[in-house]
Amino acid sequence: MLFLARMDVTFPESMDRAARAEYQKREKEYSAEQQRTGVMRGIWRIVGEYANYSMFDVESAEQLHDVLSGFPMFPYMSVKVTPLAQHPNATKSDFFG
Amino acid sequence: MLFLARMDVTFPESMDRAARAEYQKREKEYSAEQQRTGVMRGIWRIVGEYANYSMFDVESAEQLHDVLSGFPMFPYMSVKVTPLAQHPNATKSDFFG
Amino acid sequence: MLFLARMDVTFPESMDRAARAEYQKREKEYSAEQQRTGVMRGIWRIVGEYANYSMFDVESAEQLHDVLSGFPMFPYMSVKVTPLAQHPNATKSDFFG
Amino acid sequence: MLFLARMDVTFPESMDRAARAEYQKREKEYSAEQQRTGVMRGIWRIVGEYANYSMFDVESAEQLHDVLSGFPMFPYMSVKVTPLAQHPNATKSDFFG
Amino acid sequence: MLFLARMDVTFPESMDRAARAEYQKREKEYSAEQQRTGVMRGIWRIVGEYANYSMFDVESAEQLHDVLSGFPMFPYMSVKVTPLAQHPNATKSDFFG
Amino acid sequence: MLFLARMDVTFPESMDRAARAEYQKREKEYSAEQQRTGVMRGIWRIVGEYANYSMFDVESAEQLHDVLSGFPMFPYMSVKVTPLAQHPNATKSDFFG
Amino acid sequence: MLFLARMDVTFPESMDRAARAEYQKREKEYSAEQQRTGVMRGIWRIVGEYANYSMFDVESAEQLHDVLSGFPMFPYMSVKVTPLAQHPNATKSDFFG
Amino acid sequence: MLFLARMDVTFPESMDRAARAEYQKREKEYSAEQQRTGVMRGIWRIVGEYANYSMFDVESAEQLHDVLSGFPMFPYMSVKVTPLAQHPNATKSDFFG
Amino acid sequence: MLFLARMDVTFPESMDRAARAEYQKREKEYSAEQQRTGVMRGIWRIVGEYANYSMFDVESAEQLHDVLSGFPMFPYMSVKVTPLAQHPNATKSDFFG
Amino acid sequence: MLFLARMDVTFPESMDRAARAEYQKREKEYSAEQQRTGVMRGIWRIVGEYANYSMFDVESAEQLHDVLSGFPMFPYMSVKVTPLAQHPNATKSDFFG
Repeated sequence: MLFLARMDVTFPESMDRAARAEYQKREKEYSAEQQRTGVMRGIWRIVGEYANYSMFDVESAEQLHDVLSGFPMFPYMSVKVTPLAQHPNATKSDFFG
Repeated sequence: MLFLARMDVTFPESMDRAARAEYQKREKEYSAEQQRTGVMRGIWRIVGEYANYSMFDVESAEQLHDVLSGFPMFPYMSVKVTPLAQHPNATKSDFFG
Repeated sequence: MLFLARMDVTFPESMDRAARAEYQKREKEYSAEQQRTGVMRGIWRIVGEYANYSMFDVESAEQLHDVLSGFPMFPYMSVKVTPLAQHPNATKSDFFG
Repeated sequence: MLFLARMDVTFPESMDRAARAEYQKREKEYSAEQQRTGVMRGIWRIVGEYANYSMFDVESAEQLHDVLSGFPMFPYMSVKVTPLAQHPNATKSDFFG
Repeated sequence: MLFLARMDVTFPESMDRAARAEYQKREKEYSAEQQRTGVMRGIWRIVGEYANYSMFDVESAEQLHDVLSGFPMFPYMSVKVTPLAQHPNATKSDFFG
Repeated sequence: MLFLARMDVTFPESMDRAARAEYQKREKEYSAEQQRTGVMRGIWRIVGEYANYSMFDVESAEQLHDVLSGFPMFPYMSVKVTPLAQHPNATKSDFFG
Repeated sequence: MLFLARMDVTFPESMDRAARAEYQKREKEYSAEQQRTGVMRGIWRIVGEYANYSMFDVESAEQLHDVLSGFPMFPYMSVKVTPLAQHPNATKSDFFG
Repeated sequence: MLFLARMDVTFPESMDRAARAEYQKREKEYSAEQQRTGVMRGIWRIVGEYANYSMFDVESAEQLHDVLSGFPMFPYMSVKVTPLAQHPNATKSDFFG
Repeated sequence: MLFLARMDVTFPESMDRAARAEYQKREKEYSAEQQRTGVMRGIWRIVGEYANYSMFDVESAEQLHDVLSGFPMFPYMSVKVTPLAQHPNATKSDFFG
Repeated sequence: MLFLARMDVTFPESMDRAARAEYQKREKEYSAEQQRTGVMRGIWRIVGEYANYSMFDVESAEQLHDVLSGFPMFPYMSVKVTPLAQHPNATKSDFFG
């Protein structure tokens, strides 16, 4: 079951460079793990913004919330989730490789 | 180069059922052709809405406008385009199969 | 899996009283059927508006779109869907009887 | 009388982890008490957000404001309340068990 | 129990002058009746707009929806309802005469 | 001349409990004085929000700004003012006692 | 007492050229009369839009609504009114000649 | 050439009373100078808000930006500029004395 | 003096194909003339939308409104104008050839 | 390939004058370099705002994100990007000199 998420990141002004870098490192690891297990089917940078669109493939909305709230940078994210379904004009049931 | 598009369709009240069906048939064919050539990398229904998110892979913004404005139902669509780039946390350069 | 939907209905100006009544009758039957099968766990009127909030319990986002687009008045509805998950402060896993 | 509330929580940057945990513990107790007395008929997490939708059953708007402003985390919440009424298509007068 | 309502009226282009006048006459009678029974505690024109703010005093949200949807011009209104409560700085429990 | 005002209060994070209480005490006194003189015809809490709707009866917009900017908590308020006029369907020229 | 109004005009699609011209002629006369009596202190075109900003000097909000609703094109206008007061930095009590 | 500007002021929480007063004093002087030279044709307080509408008469957009960014409080302002033109219904080419 | 304009076109449902084509032909001629005289310094399609961004170089806001309202399709356009000034980081006073 | 960007800058309250000046100096150098290489085809101040519209000519959305995120002040910018295409009414393929 696919959900599109838009995630916007805003670090508090008081967080120093080292703390940001540490968050980004942990975020990258977590993100890689979600991609490895097939939960995160894709992630793309929105040009010009500290934000991304990501595609998640989960068993339930429950699981999606667990995955999203597990992101190390989750407390600094604004996330908007859109549930998706098979489109009648789609020629494949799965567009991801 | 990837662009995410959100397309919302609104048919005018005066269009009858047969005309709608004809548009939908031509739309499906056009959409299939775009998928066949790899320009449209994916299309998903937004749950509960007469709308979709689609992913386009094009050589230029020029080409993207040509593809979008070529949709038979383009005159009845509201389209919002978001340019995407490789995300630093992506583990693949191409998420589509 | 629960989804909250807000549905706003706008009939076109040209639709006469009888056609509206017929739509409403079919809508009521369809809605009752969704409640009988447990797919629609609740529906409430938004005070002062021709709109409702409804709670759906489905196996998948796919199923949810099928249910929503099956409403007789779907062509005249604007629907916004919010995916829900178990809240950590909830004292029950299911609030519906 | 039912009211749907959407509550979004934003803790100030300066609040430390311990203070947040203490707030969350007190919030959970307060929430459980509201559920026990039947005032809060349900609470659901909005997927991907530090926010919930809750359903309240109260005697008056007065009582609702007292309940909402009594939440320990109320000073850090943005709350939007929607009054609800019986829907003509509802097959039950009470959807909660 | 007080609710503030903002009502905006939009007549369809096709409705002729006589039909509008007839609606306005019936609206005035209905409104007067609601004021007579004390359900509508006040109604004020919003300067420069075909809209009003009204104050309703009802036993329940149920009753409020019945009153609002009973307005002859209800099909042409957009209504937004805000539930109110006693304010701690109020020096009276009832501001209306 | 009546004006409806919506006032939303946001205290800065750095203001301590005692300062807030002091502000609220002074606000209550000022508000009572405005009610005593008939300038503030009513004030109601918006359910679930640190906000109110208030009705002001003034000689001029000038006077209204003086009254509003005189509120002790004015620097922490966002205020939106709506000018009102007699409604053709009103059965009284003054709804306040 | 000054009020700034923004007026946006939208003629219905069905209104023909002659009817529009007739409305514009009557509007011009009415507008001139309001300027002659000093009620309308100024009117300016918003560049690129079928809209204006106007300044009204009236005795009361009541009078303002009468003036605004008296515009021949009022049924086709969307009007937003902002009450103004003397600014502490103003070097004149009246900027209009 | 006339431009309408809406300016909203927000001082940072950390700025103390004396600093604010100093800014306001310098702002008043600068504003008076702009009025004296005829660049600022008018300034009005928006009732209930720390904001104003101002009318500027300049030779060019260039000059307008210089004037606006020269305000001592410019770093704490949000400014929105609307270019104006002669209105066909205006009975004078200049409404300011 | 440069102004950026965003123009969105919406033809009424009732306008037939031939009328649209005629409007587009006249629009093209008018647009070419504005480019020839140097008033329109550039025009670009917004990808996926029946809309453009255009850059105008005019002597006055007056002239800009005349140019914009002279577009054959002006009655079907929504136009938003933004006044521009020389940017301190610009390395040229004129970016257009 | 052209993209229009709107960039709004907000420095944190805590950043002192010297740090701001240093950022602005580096920004100017970076901006000049982008103009020298032809990537930035133009940059204009939005009158009255600490914001600009800029035109970028890039090989790919990838390159655009690299250029934008390379701005020294990028962490303090909000950027919105609009992809552009050749307009059918354009009389030149390149409006920049």
